[in-house]
Amino acid sequence: MTTVLKLGGSVITEKDVPEKVDDEALRMAAATLADHEDLAVVHGGGSFGHHHADRHGVTTTEGTHDAAAIRDIHGAMTRLNAVVVEALVEAGVAALPVHPLSVARRDAEATLTFPTGGVHAMLSEGFVPVLHGDGVVHADRGTTVLSGDELVVHLAEGLDADRVGVCSAVEGVYDGSGAVIDRIDSFEAVADTLDGSDATDVSGGMAGKVRALLGLDAPTQVFDLDGLEAFLEGGEPGTHIG
Amino acid sequence: MTTVLKLGGSVITEKDVPEKVDDEALRMAAATLADHEDLAVVHGGGSFGHHHADRHGVTTTEGTHDAAAIRDIHGAMTRLNAVVVEALVEAGVAALPVHPLSVARRDAEATLTFPTGGVHAMLSEGFVPVLHGDGVVHADRGTTVLSGDELVVHLAEGLDADRVGVCSAVEGVYDGSGAVIDRIDSFEAVADTLDGSDATDVSGGMAGKVRALLGLDAPTQVFDLDGLEAFLEGGEPGTHIG
Repeated sequence: MTTVLKLGGSVITEKDVPEKVDDEALRMAAATLADHEDLAVVHGGGSFGHHHADRHGVTTTEGTHDAAAIRDIHGAMTRLNAVVVEALVEAGVAALPVHPLSVARRDAEATLTFPTGGVHAMLSEGFVPVLHGDGVVHADRGTTVLSGDELVVHLAEGLDADRVGVCSAVEGVYDGSGAVIDRIDSFEAVADTLDGSDATDVSGGMAGKVRALLGLDAPTQVFDLDGLEAFLEGGEPGTHIG
Repeated sequence: MTTVLKLGGSVITEKDVPEKVDDEALRMAAATLADHEDLAVVHGGGSFGHHHADRHGVTTTEGTHDAAAIRDIHGAMTRLNAVVVEALVEAGVAALPVHPLSVARRDAEATLTFPTGGVHAMLSEGFVPVLHGDGVVHADRGTTVLSGDELVVHLAEGLDADRVGVCSAVEGVYDGSGAVIDRIDSFEAVADTLDGSDATDVSGGMAGKVRALLGLDAPTQVFDLDGLEAFLEGGEPGTHIG
């Protein structure tokens, strides 16, 4: 019963302050995870990765061959990852860091390859692999951004996950009136509502998340930190997608 | 024309002082690498990794499931790796870090799997991947040590490397009288001389290196920092193995 859990960058960092962790939120998340097994965690960049990527003009499609720029982006994300792993270990979770830049690649058609054998081996040994949005080597473009959301989808497929949880800054996917949508089973049904809802998020916002998550076999929930325990206990907090 | 280059931990760190980089040696190595292409670098642990591994009783065969112990070992190695990558980038090398814990695994028979697609993609894009001795998930044993030497051999095979260089603290492999052996083509010929020569090195010492390097298809040289430029220029400094 493998679960892939995304911890949103906006949940565990203070998104408006560069490289500032939300210690209280991270500690709460770590404590909630402590009693659960067979879990792979992916966290976003929040205030760590995005501003470096912006500054260097690097996106999921625009790359760079400048190793110093990649080091800025990757370095910030590994610093955040170290803080997350540390918080989890302190909460009693057998967390191990996994850096996508070391593992993944995109070919010239932008197709992502992420060998999940190492992550699977960690799960089999009772560890909790902790991945993050990162840079990724991209044929003919140097290195582009691999977002946490793209990673969640790819990892869920690669691990044949049974459940996917996206712990975000909002309690679910909102409809036009600001109410949480209970279930989404097609993009068309919610496209108008979501269009432009997160225009400032370089990694695609809620519309992009929903579209990608709808492609998964595994049932997915989008919820906030208050819904995390319910999700890990098998419940369906927030919005069900799929 | 792919080259795999090992930078020995005893070359780039002060081996007797915990977590102390030999800045001058590292700067020299980085400057020498600056003019060369199609190069994958592996560095050892020197004074960074070994004492943490010793303290926690973790070896290439004895593992641990203690995430805090793994974090100590892996954390020290990633700190050294960051310093090495930084020095290379400052010297103009397009260096990218690759953390083996994120990529590799051993099965229950201790056979190592290290998918080299990501490293190969980095080389194709003109980057210099920089790997290091690390922890590795090991079926039924948690995490064991993956030595820089083992990694060199595995990477050379995986990348189908044309040349392998081992830049060590000594100018080559010594015979019983302290002279550098020019060529070694079988372990038997040198076994008596090498036996016990590096009894204090947990990752196997020179005898282990020679035995492993003899198994490679690619021609290999063992040399010291003074021989690095000659090796990268296509020369055969130190001892030829194979």
